[in-house]
Order: sequence, then C-alpha cells, then structure tokens
Amino acid sequence: MKKISLLGSTGSIGTQTLDVIRSNPDYFKLVALSAGSNIELVSKQVREFKPALVSVKRDEDVEKLKQEIGDVAIILSGEEGLMEVACHEDAHVLVNAVIGSVGLKPTLAAIKAGRDIAIANKETLVTAGHIVTTEANRHGVSLIPVDSEHSAIFQALNGEDASSIDRLIITASGGSFRDRTREELKGVTVKEALAHPNWSMGSKITIDSATMMNKGLEVIEAHWLFNIAYDQIDVLMHRESIIHSMIEFSDRSVMAQLGTADMRLPIQYALTYPKRLARETADRLNLWEMEKLHFGKLDMERYRCMKFAYDAGREAGTVPTVLNAANEIAVAAFLNNQISFLQIEDLIEASLNQHERIADPNLEEILHADEQTRRFVQAKL
Amino acid sequence: MKKISLLGSTGSIGTQTLDVIRSNPDYFKLVALSAGSNIELVSKQVREFKPALVSVKRDEDVEKLKQEIGDVAIILSGEEGLMEVACHEDAHVLVNAVIGSVGLKPTLAAIKAGRDIAIANKETLVTAGHIVTTEANRHGVSLIPVDSEHSAIFQALNGEDASSIDRLIITASGGSFRDRTREELKGVTVKEALAHPNWSMGSKITIDSATMMNKGLEVIEAHWLFNIAYDQIDVLMHRESIIHSMIEFSDRSVMAQLGTADMRLPIQYALTYPKRLARETADRLNLWEMEKLHFGKLDMERYRCMKFAYDAGREAGTVPTVLNAANEIAVAAFLNNQISFLQIEDLIEASLNQHERIADPNLEEILHADEQTRRFVQAKL
Repeated sequence: MKKISLLGSTGSIGTQTLDVIRSNPDYFKLVALSAGSNIELVSKQVREFKPALVSVKRDEDVEKLKQEIGDVAIILSGEEGLMEVACHEDAHVLVNAVIGSVGLKPTLAAIKAGRDIAIANKETLVTAGHIVTTEANRHGVSLIPVDSEHSAIFQALNGEDASSIDRLIITASGGSFRDRTREELKGVTVKEALAHPNWSMGSKITIDSATMMNKGLEVIEAHWLFNIAYDQIDVLMHRESIIHSMIEFSDRSVMAQLGTADMRLPIQYALTYPKRLARETADRLNLWEMEKLHFGKLDMERYRCMKFAYDAGREAGTVPTVLNAANEIAVAAFLNNQISFLQIEDLIEASLNQHERIADPNLEEILHADEQTRRFVQAKL
Repeated sequence: MKKISLLGSTGSIGTQTLDVIRSNPDYFKLVALSAGSNIELVSKQVREFKPALVSVKRDEDVEKLKQEIGDVAIILSGEEGLMEVACHEDAHVLVNAVIGSVGLKPTLAAIKAGRDIAIANKETLVTAGHIVTTEANRHGVSLIPVDSEHSAIFQALNGEDASSIDRLIITASGGSFRDRTREELKGVTVKEALAHPNWSMGSKITIDSATMMNKGLEVIEAHWLFNIAYDQIDVLMHRESIIHSMIEFSDRSVMAQLGTADMRLPIQYALTYPKRLARETADRLNLWEMEKLHFGKLDMERYRCMKFAYDAGREAGTVPTVLNAANEIAVAAFLNNQISFLQIEDLIEASLNQHERIADPNLEEILHADEQTRRFVQAKL
C-alpha cells in the first residue's frame, strides 16, 4: 500500500491522480490533499478518499469546507497548509500537481522531510532546478517525472546507463496553432488557443502548448531531471503525440515510449515505478488505427518561446526564473483577455531584457527575481 | 575484452559481425570462425582477425585455405569443425549467424559447453525451440537476440519485469512485394523478390521477407526467446522498418526501439549487453527526415505464410520443424528457378498436411522430421 499526499487535487493532474487511486484501492491510499478554491469539488474528494488532512488556498474557505465535510479531516489553509500536506508524515510519496512556481517551497519542504516526489509541477524545476535537484540529491529523494514526455524518457532509461545517453528527443504536437503562420496568430482568441488537438489539459498548460513555452519549460525540466546538457536535448515536431519522447543512446539505438493521450498512465507509473500495474480498462495503442505518424523539424523562428527557453536554460542562474515568472503572468493576462496572444512573447522578452542576472542564486534571490518579474509584467498590462 | 567465436563468417550477419569487431579492437577479439565455401573471403578474414581456429564446410577446402593462410590458424572442416568452433574454449560468446536448421547441433553443443549465444540463426529456434530453451535454462546460458526485431524487444525489456508484458508487437516492412496483390505475385522473378525495400540481407532471408515467412519465423522465435504465448504476439505492418519492434506492458505503456536499417547495431548490442558502446560514425536516426511513418494491419489472407507460422507455432511439437524445413528447401528451389514464387507456399502447405505430428519430440525426432520434410519437398520439385 503506497500512501500519497497530493498538492493540487482539483486540477487536471490532480483529478486524474485521484482516478488512479480510485482504480487501485488495494495499492494506493490518499492521506493528504491540497486544493485551491473549488470547495464543492474538494469536499466531494474528501468524502470519497477520506484523507486525514486537507488544505485549501483561502483562510475563509476553511469554515465553508468544514460545514461540508464535518470532522472527517483536519482542515488547514494557505502556505502553511500547503507545507503540511507536502510533508505529511504518513505519505510515502508526494504528488506535486500544482501549477506555477508556487510549488517551489512545498517541494523543498517535502524534500527536506525525505518524501519522494512525483513531480507534475514543471515550473518548480524551471524556476529553481539547481536548488531542487541539489537538495533532492542531498536528502536521497527521488524526483519522479509525471509529465508524459519526461515519463517517456524515464521509462526509456529503465535498465540503461545514463552515461550512454547521447540525446533526449522531446516530441511536440505543436499545440492549437501549429498550422498557423505567425501572421495568422494576430488576433487569435482565448477560446481558439484553448483547443489543444490531442490532450485535454488545464488552461495554463494549454496556452503554454500554443506558444510552445510548454515545450521550452520541458526542455529545462529535462535538463534538471536527467542532468543532460541543453545541446543534447532536441525537440521533434510530432503532430499525433503518440511517441511521447525518446532517448538516443551512444550506439545510435533510440528507445521510445508510446501510448494514447492519457495522463493516467504516467501518473500511475510515477507511483508504481519500477513496477507496472495493469490498466485493463484503458485504451490500447493500436498503431494501425493511426495509419501514419508525422514528424518535422522545429522552427525556432516560428516559436519564439522555444528560443527564449533554450537561451534561458543555457544562461542559467536567475534567467529561467524570470522566463517562468513572466510567462505565468503573461499567460494569466491573456486568459483574462488583457493582452493579445503574441504579446505573451513580447512580455517575456521584455522581462528577460530588463533583468539583472544573478549567476548562482540562492533561494531568496530566486524568490526575489520571481517577484520582481511578476511586478514588472503586471505594470506593463 | 570479449572473446568471440563466429559461425557463418562470410554471410551478411557474419561480415557485419566482423565490422563490429574491427571497429572496436579494444573490446572484441575473434578467436574462432566457421564459413562455407567462399575460401577467398574466409582467407582474407583469417589474415585480418587472426582467429586460432577456422572451419570450412568442405573437407577439400582445408588444403586450399592452408595454402592461403599458412599456419596462422588450425583449420577444420564439416560438422566436426562447426562443433569445435561453436564450443571453442577461449570464447565468451558464440555468434551463431549460419542460415537454416544446420545451426541446431552446434547451438546445442555450445549451450552444453556453457557459452552464451548471440543468436541470428532463427531457424534453430523455430525447428527446436523447446529443446534449445530448455537446455539453455539448464546450463544457465543466455540466448541474446541479434535479429533487429528481437533485439528491439530485448532492449525494450531492459529494466522491466517480463511478467508485465501484455503483448509483443513485431513490425514488418512487408518485403519486396508488399504493394502487390496475390494475383500480381504470379510470375514474379527471383531478381524482383531479392529487391528488399529497406534492408540489404542475405538471399534466403530476403525471399522469406517477400513471402512473409521471415515474420512468421520471427513470431515463433519471439515465442521461445521471450516465453510469450502466440496470442500475445502481434505483427504490425510498418513500411519504413524504423520502429524495429515494441512491447506493450500491462499498464498500456508501449516501449519501442527505433533505428536506421543497420544490423551492426543489434549485433553489437548482443555483444555489449547490458552496456552500450558508442558508434560514433554510424548514422543517427532523425525522424524529421522521414516526415512520416506508416502502419497497417496484417492481412493473413494476403500472406499465407504468416498463417502457416502462427498455426505451426500453436500446434508446436514437430510442426514448426516441418514448416521451417519445407520453407528452406522451397526457397532454395525458388532461388534456383525450379519453382514459382507462389509454389513456395504450396509446398509448405503440402508438407504440413502430410506430416504425422509428434507432440513432444526429442532431438532425434526433430532431426528426423526435418530430414523427412526435406525429402518430401525435394521429391515434389
């Protein structure tokens, strides 16, 4: 029985994590969860999974939730609650499924508490990858990827010697605007941007897919998770998202993981690794039904965010922090109809240009760069 | 330093095995080889690789070779020589690259001598899989696949629990006649049949690819190598031969190995497993250069040999022996312009129909069924 604490229970990864737990009641037990402001959903989740501890974002929701669930669970709120869930002493593993660099502090707290972490929260690794991975190594904690691309690489690395990796090949569907020129991106609506061709995901990651920033963040995430130089990470356009990613080894053998577009597979794998657990009712991948898989070269001119991300990753220091913070605020502003789609890129570029780099930042410097960048972008809206 | 003995040094796999050894002189040393009747090539090989022992097919070639190479190596001939090479006491691993069930006895001898075997000789596993695998288990000997499809599965199985395999998915290019209907197969020439679209291979395996018997033999080979039921082995049409094969695990994750059409990769992997050795001058697989990969369902009506093979595998006993022996003689007869392409299938079918099955045959019964089938087909030519 694996005991799980979950940050971000009402989001896309959170609810699918609960699907996995629900499907395998003999294997998994939820002991703690945190959620945002969707009290109706979180109260339903608590009644079903009966965790000992729940945390909500806002203090004022504690009473509201209490009226829904009674004394079933301890209810906390805010950053303190998030930290308590992240470090819950009964949990074997923390699933970090929050969105944005808000996941950084609870991740570090969980690492210090010795929890293995199934990490779906890529922004945490982008914003402070050197701190998170150094701490994880120091505390002997595993960071197990949940993102489908990184899970694919993690699976392809099974039984292999990481020093034999020549190249990681991360696949990219191209997002909702892949068939449009840059000219055709002017004036696109939020609704159009939210229509991802393959995956049903949360709104932030769907916009990140449309700008390709999601793939850029994944490149940085892969750099930290697999300790691989940026020159050894390629992005391959692959419309169908069937090959989730690949490793090319030094003997030119390429190992790939494939599957249907179902996040419950990488979520479950992160929780069962190194074992696999049958998913009998899940769809099989039958490639003959696809007939064709398509591949193409990434065009860095078309997808400016990819270039920002590679450059930021290579510059390192506080630069990825700024990249991520600017993106978070710009995407929120686009979703809120405050800016146009292409202004997301412009705001990120402006943020990177004004930032005074710090080469080897500590946590305070990271948090400060994050905060300063958010203020900078907000002021431009 | 891994010391290698090699059966079948002048064939396609044999010469490519020597390419691998030549490229890695600090890693590999050839200690013994056997060849057929190409004395010019074998003498060149002996002068280059200086094995201690050489065996040729015909007794009369011993003197001929001696005049070429002098006292560099001991020279033997015939079945006795083959057995000595197979069991050479200095070798860590035997590469069995002979074609046909002639490889059976030396394989069994090598197993009894405790040699690990890199097996490219699929007919040996088809004709007597139960005996070969039982003996290998008894003597703690590894059978490491060299065929690209089985190497792919073997690589995909790295670090995994074999009990989690749901399905093996063996890819098939369709061979030289894949775009022809059965009607269009009447009157095809040997030259047409030898034009494989993706791989440059020996003539027997190229004809087997055109009839799809090669894939049928591979299904039986996979059954024995991976101890998997026939119902769990699928064949997937895949024109480009880029995905070499796949495993679907119980959680619906599919692990695949991909690469260019270069047999030196699986040969080398069989010799370096579980490590990998850099192949810096080998071509990379860049999927964007392909643009598309195609997949299709296997049509058992179109490829009768596939159905013969699945049926023979499921019937087991002496039936796969008969399938293989009939195929070997029929393919040789086709290559010799004695029969038409479609008569290959007819002769195999007739052989299977006339055969009196033995359920759990011993080695003598296997050899007898093999011999009897060869005589039966010869008599029909």
